[in-house]
Amino acid sequence: MFITFLSDFGLRDDFVGTCHGVIKSIAPEIQIIDITHGIPPQHVLQGALVLRNTLPYMPQGVHLAVVDPGVGGHRRPLAIRTGEGRFLVGPDNGLLPPAADRLGSVEAAHELANPDYALDTVSRTFHGRDLFSPAAAHLARGVAIGELGPPIDPQALVRIDIPEPEVGQNRIRATVLYVDHFGNIELNLTRDQLEQADVHPGVTVELELALERYYATAARTFADAGPGDIILYEDAYKNVAIAISGGSAAEMFGVGAGQEVRIHLRTP
Amino acid sequence: MFITFLSDFGLRDDFVGTCHGVIKSIAPEIQIIDITHGIPPQHVLQGALVLRNTLPYMPQGVHLAVVDPGVGGHRRPLAIRTGEGRFLVGPDNGLLPPAADRLGSVEAAHELANPDYALDTVSRTFHGRDLFSPAAAHLARGVAIGELGPPIDPQALVRIDIPEPEVGQNRIRATVLYVDHFGNIELNLTRDQLEQADVHPGVTVELELALERYYATAARTFADAGPGDIILYEDAYKNVAIAISGGSAAEMFGVGAGQEVRIHLRTP
Amino acid sequence: MFITFLSDFGLRDDFVGTCHGVIKSIAPEIQIIDITHGIPPQHVLQGALVLRNTLPYMPQGVHLAVVDPGVGGHRRPLAIRTGEGRFLVGPDNGLLPPAADRLGSVEAAHELANPDYALDTVSRTFHGRDLFSPAAAHLARGVAIGELGPPIDPQALVRIDIPEPEVGQNRIRATVLYVDHFGNIELNLTRDQLEQADVHPGVTVELELALERYYATAARTFADAGPGDIILYEDAYKNVAIAISGGSAAEMFGVGAGQEVRIHLRTP
Repeated sequence: MFITFLSDFGLRDDFVGTCHGVIKSIAPEIQIIDITHGIPPQHVLQGALVLRNTLPYMPQGVHLAVVDPGVGGHRRPLAIRTGEGRFLVGPDNGLLPPAADRLGSVEAAHELANPDYALDTVSRTFHGRDLFSPAAAHLARGVAIGELGPPIDPQALVRIDIPEPEVGQNRIRATVLYVDHFGNIELNLTRDQLEQADVHPGVTVELELALERYYATAARTFADAGPGDIILYEDAYKNVAIAISGGSAAEMFGVGAGQEVRIHLRTP
Repeated sequence: MFITFLSDFGLRDDFVGTCHGVIKSIAPEIQIIDITHGIPPQHVLQGALVLRNTLPYMPQGVHLAVVDPGVGGHRRPLAIRTGEGRFLVGPDNGLLPPAADRLGSVEAAHELANPDYALDTVSRTFHGRDLFSPAAAHLARGVAIGELGPPIDPQALVRIDIPEPEVGQNRIRATVLYVDHFGNIELNLTRDQLEQADVHPGVTVELELALERYYATAARTFADAGPGDIILYEDAYKNVAIAISGGSAAEMFGVGAGQEVRIHLRTP
Repeated sequence: MFITFLSDFGLRDDFVGTCHGVIKSIAPEIQIIDITHGIPPQHVLQGALVLRNTLPYMPQGVHLAVVDPGVGGHRRPLAIRTGEGRFLVGPDNGLLPPAADRLGSVEAAHELANPDYALDTVSRTFHGRDLFSPAAAHLARGVAIGELGPPIDPQALVRIDIPEPEVGQNRIRATVLYVDHFGNIELNLTRDQLEQADVHPGVTVELELALERYYATAARTFADAGPGDIILYEDAYKNVAIAISGGSAAEMFGVGAGQEVRIHLRTP
């Protein structure tokens, strides 16, 4: 049995290790897979997108996710069971539903309210340790989700808007979702949408971002471009991304999540 | 059986992974929990505090800790057994005793001197790999602590001073112990000490740090404050900390571990 | 059974966690040891050196390594069996042979070409997830290497040059291989080569790097030097390295991998 774990805790402090300790104290035989703890602090949208993208690659189990700016306030702590028989545990702030929907929709949701499945003392600022990790560990050991607390109407869960691109004839207005470690810039755009605007592999476009303009070429992979070329490609999670072959696009363009990117088809 | 592991090795190099390899080569069935490897390089005090704070959340086992500026010199390599039946392994430089004391005091201490429980070649600069990891792995497999080397008088272990705050009428002089990934600033101060100086939730104080003055409010949790408010709160390890709701206090104030913070109660 | 894993993926994104998910979905009982994911992006040489240095400390198993600037292009995906009965999996770009040679040479090499041992969809940019992780997991479960694809002549594998120092009478020209988390600067130089140039412990030399000159002392360990002293010492992987006792040599000198360092013996 597996618990996967995603958070914005970073790896510099002990937060992740302490949650591992709590889980292993309750469920020593459970294996933990750390998806990532590098979600930018308190970026619920980015946490939700990465969770949705990665859970299809994870084995069945309990999927613990903590990006929780509202800790200690009125947001509810949750456990969800999906149609595929997976469980998700985390705050009711929009983090979990996009992944749950991709895994067969929310079949049941319960508020974490039973102190038997939390640590003896629950702090006001670290529910990852005191509430979410124990709940995930007990679920993974076979505790029924209904034991954790009262049911919540799945329709009543908090949901976040995922920004949609504007796709017009020969022009697209997209948003940067994510910048990765290699400096590749992921957009809220699919290859289908790119092709709707007549941008096919080999076509050159103009990119407008951060008040500057650049030429880029639609490509299938890094290997189709020469060193230093700017390319648009479909990344491994099926989003369109901007890269520089052999370099860091994010460093060159100085952009980050949330910024607008315009793509114009060059008229010949 | 578990080995927990804390160090200042960082995760960029192979140091942590190599220690895992050494442990698993000796004890393949042992589970390793990485508490953190983000202790600032060679900060023994911070390592000692994080170890003390986190071990109560860890399952029973062998607790390996390496923050070791004196490697290759005269400091002794140690194994400790505590009153609770846990083991600690690391350098005799003050890193281990605060955690050992919290776990039932030092019941026995031995110098790591038996080459049967070290790697064949012990380098002068990487005792984490060559000496401490093998000793932890052998202890976890059931080797008696007395086999590792001669006993040391627990009173003779090196101890470090943990800075104490000055708590006066309406004023406190505290020290920054730690700045976390979210930019929260942990002080060497408890809620009781704060209340001794008449600072209760809802009270506004003046903070003096890095030659500047700011107003802050004592609060129970982030959710009690508006965005941008500076708050004093009891963190999840029961220290008083300074935070900015929705932001990074460390970035705003530009402070780090070891700096002084003064707290004045505003006279009405 | 173990899979060890080295890459340039970093830990900020989900790349490493997603590969873990893929491996555990195929081979739930296999243990994964992360050697490091901090190889600088696309630095095949540094990945090759770290893999070669660390594999002797790892238990027997499958050694997965991904530093892959040519992903999606013509470079072949590989599995190798070494004379010691270990397996290596990764791209055919020079990353694997130095480690394989240290572990008893390449006994067999096969191209990863059998889609039964890859994910159903293989993206053009993330072969770590779609091709290399599944192949490593299947090998670890006992699939014969010959099942993965056609044999490759071991002589035909891509190999990279590891830079050699110039060692003359009283002078050495070396190259920085690596800068670690503590700021220690590892050179492509052994203690034997240092001694060929008459540099023995206690001897003072002149270092010339980044257009500046500094005095340094050959030492056995950090403990032989006073705070702030610059030392040359044999590091834990038997390379000569430059350190500042109690500080960061890399920060002081502002050097990085690939830069030249000259060492002159001072004439008395």
